[in-house]
Amino acid sequence: VSTFGGTNTVFGLVDATGNIIDEGHFATREVSANPLTYFERLNLDLTRLRQRNPDHPPVAVGVGAPNGNYYRSSIENPPNLGWGIVDVNEQLGRHQQVPVVTTNDANAAALGELLYGAVGEMKNFILITLGTGLGSGIVVNGEVVYGAYGFAGEIGHLTLVEGGRICGCGRRGCLETYVSATGIVRTVYELLASERSASELREVAPSALTARAIFDAANAGDAIARLAFSRTGTWLGQKLADAVAILEPEAIILFGGLANAGDMLLNPAQKALDEHVMGTFRNKTKIQLSSLQGKNIAVLGAAALAARAIT
Amino acid sequence: VSTFGGTNTVFGLVDATGNIIDEGHFATREVSANPLTYFERLNLDLTRLRQRNPDHPPVAVGVGAPNGNYYRSSIENPPNLGWGIVDVNEQLGRHQQVPVVTTNDANAAALGELLYGAVGEMKNFILITLGTGLGSGIVVNGEVVYGAYGFAGEIGHLTLVEGGRICGCGRRGCLETYVSATGIVRTVYELLASERSASELREVAPSALTARAIFDAANAGDAIARLAFSRTGTWLGQKLADAVAILEPEAIILFGGLANAGDMLLNPAQKALDEHVMGTFRNKTKIQLSSLQGKNIAVLGAAALAARAIT
Repeated sequence: VSTFGGTNTVFGLVDATGNIIDEGHFATREVSANPLTYFERLNLDLTRLRQRNPDHPPVAVGVGAPNGNYYRSSIENPPNLGWGIVDVNEQLGRHQQVPVVTTNDANAAALGELLYGAVGEMKNFILITLGTGLGSGIVVNGEVVYGAYGFAGEIGHLTLVEGGRICGCGRRGCLETYVSATGIVRTVYELLASERSASELREVAPSALTARAIFDAANAGDAIARLAFSRTGTWLGQKLADAVAILEPEAIILFGGLANAGDMLLNPAQKALDEHVMGTFRNKTKIQLSSLQGKNIAVLGAAALAARAIT
Repeated sequence: VSTFGGTNTVFGLVDATGNIIDEGHFATREVSANPLTYFERLNLDLTRLRQRNPDHPPVAVGVGAPNGNYYRSSIENPPNLGWGIVDVNEQLGRHQQVPVVTTNDANAAALGELLYGAVGEMKNFILITLGTGLGSGIVVNGEVVYGAYGFAGEIGHLTLVEGGRICGCGRRGCLETYVSATGIVRTVYELLASERSASELREVAPSALTARAIFDAANAGDAIARLAFSRTGTWLGQKLADAVAILEPEAIILFGGLANAGDMLLNPAQKALDEHVMGTFRNKTKIQLSSLQGKNIAVLGAAALAARAIT
């Protein structure tokens, strides 16, 4: 069994080969006023999940959550929730009576890719989740890099632009303020200011504009929308070049809504990456889509985390 | 026994506890016209070293060399030597009749720090060598990160300034063109152009200026020299922030001539690092001097590489 908390909480029962046997979800906000009410609801839903599937008793619970900490099995000051530090072991383990393992959502997703994806023999890769923000899970020698204190892998908070766009983390210029679903909306409004091209996006209020609408406009040939994807890809590749010089991964795997843009995003990213690395690394690291794109990587990632903990 | 090739080739016989029993060196240039003449000389010197120390027969040879590749035990296109790809195993192993292990010089130094240094329980750190260039060895979970193809850990070639100073690697703006012994010389000449402060460094021809002279001038209170160290430290910390967000190391350990500047370099670097990371990482990763500073880290690093290969 595996669980996952974010904007939405999704959970599922996954077998040893990565099949999702049963799953469910609820809106995190409904019960997130404090950790106690949240975990009460989650425990209730997990108990129901177990009751519905008596032939598949869970052997471990994996949790992929914002600011999830692997070493302490905790969720620590998750953004926008005001929770402080929560001991997940205590909140879930006591009720579920099986081992509980926690890490952040992107690390779990990287493990999902490793165990159930198509990375094959790949032992060194970076998984990037492009959602509201930009998350990353780093795999070196077949193991997730957790760092000294359990919070490694924050590529979304590398500085792209000194003194640039304000970020949810309190700093300025973080990569995720440019490369993410919310980042590309900001980029479109910059382009609407700097360029004179006609664009259907000029009709949309900033608060109503979505990455999905930009994607649709780009597919319909809108020049501003296309330029926004091209800039976004270039910024991503430029900054990933730093990660490549440090880690020399075999591939960088993109997952998430924004990654649906496919070549519109991947081509400029690959080009910028190869332009920003020294010869040793050029034309080696491939930027590619996740083989789990469209699947429930949240549940599969948390399941992979649980599976590794008990083997 | 362990060897090391760079501008100078140094080699030594090291026991299991990290004592250098005997050592030697020669100028790489004298015999580097081609790999064959180079390794002929090295084999000869190693044979003499063994003959001088019959009570300490070597059990393995470790080699730390520019562009040394761990997976293939090769040296591949080392900068400034025009060698192409050299099979170190073939060149050394055949003559020395013991296992031969190769990696780049900074990776070897990181292993030296891990085995013979004062890192203690530290399992996640980055070693930075500040010499003519900027080399780095990355340790995650007590293991050096070699990457997918054996060339990971090139922090010196992260881009500090888009379109900045030309680098030996052919690109522009690499960190090592700013933060290294040669980088600080370039910085001084920029400062002599942009500032009006009196400076004894105005009397020195660019080709004659050294990092050592800048260090001495800074210690004597020269404003330009002090500003050069402060800028250098700031740039280092700013770019190390990216490495910290990716790897979350416990410490970043500086080694090499430029690191002798101590607090003049470390203080601005630590300040800039903490200013350029998100709250999760602030005031955690310490920038510190290597405990092996002043010792033969080249020989100790290569020895550590050899020691790990046979245990």
